[in-house]
Formats: sequence, structure tokens, C-alpha cells
Amino acid sequence: MDDADTPDGTLPTIAGVSADLDTTVTGPTSLPLRPELAGLEPYGAPQLDVPVALNVNENPYAPSEQVVADIAAAVADAARGLNRYPDRDFEALRADLAAYLLTESGVGLGVEQLWAANGSNEVMLHLLQAFGGPGRTALSFAPTYSMYPEYARDTSTAWVAGRREEDFSLDPDVARATIAQHAPSVVLLASPNNPTGTALPTATILAVLDAAAQVPGGCVVVVDEAYGEFRRRGTPSALELLADHPHLAVSRTMSKAFGLAGARLGYLAASRELVDALRVVRLPYHLSAVTQAVARAALAHSTELMAQVGSLRDERDALVVWLRERGLQVADSDANFVLFGLFEDRRAVWEGLLDRGVLIREVGPPGWLRVSVGTPRETQAFKDALVEVAGL
Amino acid sequence: MDDADTPDGTLPTIAGVSADLDTTVTGPTSLPLRPELAGLEPYGAPQLDVPVALNVNENPYAPSEQVVADIAAAVADAARGLNRYPDRDFEALRADLAAYLLTESGVGLGVEQLWAANGSNEVMLHLLQAFGGPGRTALSFAPTYSMYPEYARDTSTAWVAGRREEDFSLDPDVARATIAQHAPSVVLLASPNNPTGTALPTATILAVLDAAAQVPGGCVVVVDEAYGEFRRRGTPSALELLADHPHLAVSRTMSKAFGLAGARLGYLAASRELVDALRVVRLPYHLSAVTQAVARAALAHSTELMAQVGSLRDERDALVVWLRERGLQVADSDANFVLFGLFEDRRAVWEGLLDRGVLIREVGPPGWLRVSVGTPRETQAFKDALVEVAGL
Repeated sequence: MDDADTPDGTLPTIAGVSADLDTTVTGPTSLPLRPELAGLEPYGAPQLDVPVALNVNENPYAPSEQVVADIAAAVADAARGLNRYPDRDFEALRADLAAYLLTESGVGLGVEQLWAANGSNEVMLHLLQAFGGPGRTALSFAPTYSMYPEYARDTSTAWVAGRREEDFSLDPDVARATIAQHAPSVVLLASPNNPTGTALPTATILAVLDAAAQVPGGCVVVVDEAYGEFRRRGTPSALELLADHPHLAVSRTMSKAFGLAGARLGYLAASRELVDALRVVRLPYHLSAVTQAVARAALAHSTELMAQVGSLRDERDALVVWLRERGLQVADSDANFVLFGLFEDRRAVWEGLLDRGVLIREVGPPGWLRVSVGTPRETQAFKDALVEVAGL
Repeated sequence: MDDADTPDGTLPTIAGVSADLDTTVTGPTSLPLRPELAGLEPYGAPQLDVPVALNVNENPYAPSEQVVADIAAAVADAARGLNRYPDRDFEALRADLAAYLLTESGVGLGVEQLWAANGSNEVMLHLLQAFGGPGRTALSFAPTYSMYPEYARDTSTAWVAGRREEDFSLDPDVARATIAQHAPSVVLLASPNNPTGTALPTATILAVLDAAAQVPGGCVVVVDEAYGEFRRRGTPSALELLADHPHLAVSRTMSKAFGLAGARLGYLAASRELVDALRVVRLPYHLSAVTQAVARAALAHSTELMAQVGSLRDERDALVVWLRERGLQVADSDANFVLFGLFEDRRAVWEGLLDRGVLIREVGPPGWLRVSVGTPRETQAFKDALVEVAGL
């Protein structure tokens, strides 16, 4: 669940598609762009150069010099064999990921239960290629991560957005009824949810798993824990449910807690049967030898990086308190960002912050804004700017 | 056009799909695997550990220590900012690729005409996501690269294999008739072709482009030049045709000539309109900051690497002569591999070579075998083994 929710404003010109009135007879320069793509803009948040970037839920801490050195050494090692194709099954990396999850969540998994790809984006694509596709439906509950419908579109899977409650929780009965009504082959549950920060209780996930098991033809439930490491103490991980639910997949990423958004390493844990299905649809050698080396070098530093996550959690909790003390409404957050509001003119607040060098995100239901948790200095800059702009 | 033509022999178990007799009522452990994937094995050549690996058309020369050092330095630099998402549009890399193609083929292209992804595999996926898909057809001419039907399957695009002539050439009239008959939205032409090594003359590509331009709704022609740098002197590149044909895409890779199969960097050149369509279907941040850095570091050494390509071409031509002198049939090759035969029992020859530590590829029409061009020492080992096994 990498984060990039709004278009970047550069509209590509697609010749001969939307321009031609008669689409059955086209000139020699027309391209057979799929009609559902006509006029669409590439997905992605604006990449602006600002002093304080708190818009895409990146980890504010750059890798330490020791991590950088180890990454460089691992890549130099890999580079000596780059003329050869990479290990297609990346078993060493999968073993490292399993070891990390055991430490992080106390859940033991076999290598054959791990999968990885170039970002959670590609993990989700593999899931929908294997279990979605033409004639099938993927379902989630809005407001949620805005890339989900794009994954569905990219795989010609029908898309249904069920609804969350006013407080962004998911009512188990609503979830059951929605699944029974639409009989999806894939259900996507972000927990903690983006852009709201809401984690789902185990009981809700179990209700969804049960409803999914009753879908004729089968249904895979994907719990997207991109922000899982930031969950508050006592909030469980869906990893604990894997042993009893072969139709469950739990996705994670190294983009957030590990601070490796630039390295593009998403992964998931699931039953062996489920992972084996992904192996059939993945493009051969999809994960480069360099990506494998970088991820493994970072995983070797997981203890140090997890300490950083703890301080980001503290920073997040303090920010929630501060915003509430100033009379704002704030969604409970188990992630590294906070959704707050409500503003009659949220665009004006967003722009006012940007004028002061602080870039946050205009996303979520009307009136809400989302801010990523930064360093203490960045958070202070955000607070100072917000006090000015919103007159707190 | 990365190379990996046969299954690796490990059949994944897909629970509840092929095993259930009644597919409409399934138990809670069944997964909704798409029926067309049931029982399939993951694609890929066996990854065996042998002294002489001449099976997947890798470049036998590892990066020099200078290239390795530059890659490591570039990655260390990128690693310091890995907590941030990469440049989504990788314009610096696209500019470097354009500069390289100008040197290599004499064709000048704008940055907006270049595209790249994690291997040609992903470039092809983007092409079929944008221009193929449900209700559409992709067409090539067999024997050709065996991943093409997989790209079609992965995007729910119908697949049609037209035919090449006995000598692996493509008859322009046959091509025209096949395109008119099937009205594909995408035509894939490998040139040099894999596994045959055959390059297409410009006249044939022009005939295909003309026939494609007459397909109602439009048709994109992809000339897959994965092995383009190995073409013999006088063989043109389809890059030269780009200026006049907005429905043409020419794909390349850094896996072969650059000896970077492990880094996964495929790319293409096309009209701006065509590239803009790919920007809509790509997953955001599909190309990591590390991949961008590695590719750019290698591109800075293109002069040195191109000298190596020249020696591989000479080695290839000498191997073709040697095989013909021993009475074998050999397809003309513009690639870094040679298709030779005919053997009544090619499997026995393949196994005899493997027994002697030389791994080649059992691929192509019955009776043929394919060997990659290695170092002089590797080629000698192949020759020695073949003399013994085939009694030349």
C-alpha cells in the first residue's frame, strides 16, 4: 500500500482515441488504446520540492550510514554476477522475510508461505491476476486506499466499493451482507486503513473470512498491512490468522517501517497453495538480483529500524493529542499518518500549509486532511504552520 | 525478450481447483484460481549449477571491476534517500537511454519517446494492458519467443500464432493476410527472433506496419529487439522506422548486450502518444531508485560494453561456420545464440552435453537445439562435448 492518491496533473495526449468521433474507422496514426483508459492521467501524488514533505507517508528517517554501507557492499557483490539472471524464486530473501515476521509479530512461517514483488503494487497485481480478472469482482470498503480500483482496472476485474461507518470502522454485519451480495473473488481490507489510519479488530477480519469462505467458487481475503508495524500496542496482526485460513493473504511492505520506499519491495504471507498460484502469474525474474540484495541488507538491520518505528509511533500519538487539544477531529491512527479535520475549505488549509513549505495531502472524505508523521522538527513545522493557517 | 523457455519442473499444488469434481460448491479452503491457470507450472528454464551455462542467452562476461565500483557508488548515493519514493517518471534514465540509442543506432529520440520497466517482460505487459486485453487479440509468427502467449494470458488477451517459413523468415504476404484475417490490436515481431536468431528485413516490417495500419480500431506493432545489438553489419534496426510510424514500438533490454540480466531493465522507444498510454497503466513507482541508479551507471560504460558485443558477434559467426563445416544445419543468426540441428533425438544430444557439464537449450522446432555464445573457453567446451556426443 504505497501511497500516491491524486493525479500529478500532467494529462497525456492519446492520439486518435478521444479525438475521433467515429471510432470504428481510424487513420493510420490511431492507437488501439483500451476505451476505459481514454483520457486518464497517470496515477501519482505531485512530486513537489518542498522543505517539509508530509504527503505520501514516507518514513522521514533516511537509512543510517551503516545501512547505506551494507547496501552498497551487498549490491557490489551482486553486481559481479549481474550478467546472469537472478534467482527466480528468491528463497534467501523469503527466508529473511519469514525470520523478520517471526520477530515482529511472533508468527512462524515457512519460506514457501512468503512472496515478494516490486512494491505492494505488484503483489496486488499478482493477486488479482491469479484470483480476479474478467468476469470476477474485487471488493473493498470505502473510504480506503485509492489504488485498489486501479489494480482492478489493470486486470479487468469488476470493482465494488462497500462502505465503512462514519468513524471509519467496518461493521461486521455490513461486511458479511456486502460480500454475500456481490460474491467477490477477492476482498481487499487495508488495516491500518489508508487514508484513515483505522486498524480492524480481529473479530471483524474473522467475520470477513467467514463470509468469504461461503462465496461459491471461493474468495481470497487480502489484509493489507502496509502500515502494520505502526499499530498501537495491543492491536493484533492478521498474520496470526494465517494458520487457520488458507484463503487469507497478509501483505506488507518495506516502504514504510523500513524506510525503503525507493527500493520497491512489497511482500505477503499466505498459505503455500495461495503463494503457488502467484508463482504462476508472476513474470519470470520479476525481482532483480539488486533488489533482492538491497532488501536483505536492510532486513539485517531490522532491530535498529524497529526502534525508529517506536519513536514514530510516539510522535504520532503525541500529534493526535495535540490536534485534539486544539479542537480538531482526529481519526484514531495505527499508521504513520493522521487524518484530521473537519475544514469547511480544506483546499485553503492545504494551500496555506504549502505556502509555508509544508506539503500534506488533500485526501479522504470531504473536510479531512492527512498528514504523515515526520521528524520532530518536521512535525513542529507542520504545527506552527497549521496554527497560523487555521487560527488554532 | 528475456529468455526462459521451459518449465522448471516444480508443479505448484493449487488446492481445490483441479481436485474438486464439483467446481460450483467448494469447501472453505478452496481458492478462486482462474481456470486457465489450473495445473500450470511457473515459467522458467531450469536453474542448474553447471560449469558451462549456455542455455538462457546471458552475456558470458561479468561486469568489469570498474563497472561494479561505479554501480556500488551510484547505489550508495541512491540509498541515502531510499526512505523517499523514486522519481516516478525516471527522466534522467530515459535521457540516458535516448543518448545510448543515438550512439548505437544513429536514431535521435526525445526523452518522452522512451519507456522502461523491470525487464522487457514488464514492458510487454504494459503494452498489452494498454492495447490488448479482453476482447482483443495479440498476434505473432511462430516459432518465436515462448513468453509472448504468457503476456497475452496474463492480460486476458486472445493469442494467435501465425507462421514463419521453413527457413524461419516471415513472408510479407503471409504476414499481411494473417493480420487482415485476425485483426489483432497488437503484433509482436521478434527481430532478431528467439529461438531462431532471424532478423527481419525492413521491407517485411514495413509490410506489417502497413497491414497493421489498416486494422479497424488500430493496431500497435512491437518489434522486440532484445538481441538487437548483436545484429550483423548491414542489418538495420526498426528504430529507424519510428519517425514515420506512431503505431510502432521497438523494445530493447539491458539484459543481453549490456550483460545486466540480473538488474532487470527493459525499455522501448516509440511515439510520444504510445509512451503516454503506457504511463497510464504502469503501477506508480514501478522502477526503483536503485534500478534507475544501476542502469544509469552501466549506461555510462556503454562504449566499453559495446566493444564486448563486437567480440561476441565474431565468436557467434565463427561458431556458425564451425557447425556448418561439421555438416550440421544452422539458422543464420543475428543474435548471441545459434539454433542448430537437425537431430533425430535432440533430447539425447542435450543430455549428453549436460553430462559433460555443458547446459544448452532444448527449444525450437523438433530436431533443433539452441546454444548461447559464451566466452572462447566456454564455446570450446561446447564444441568438444558436441564432437563426442554427436560423433562429428
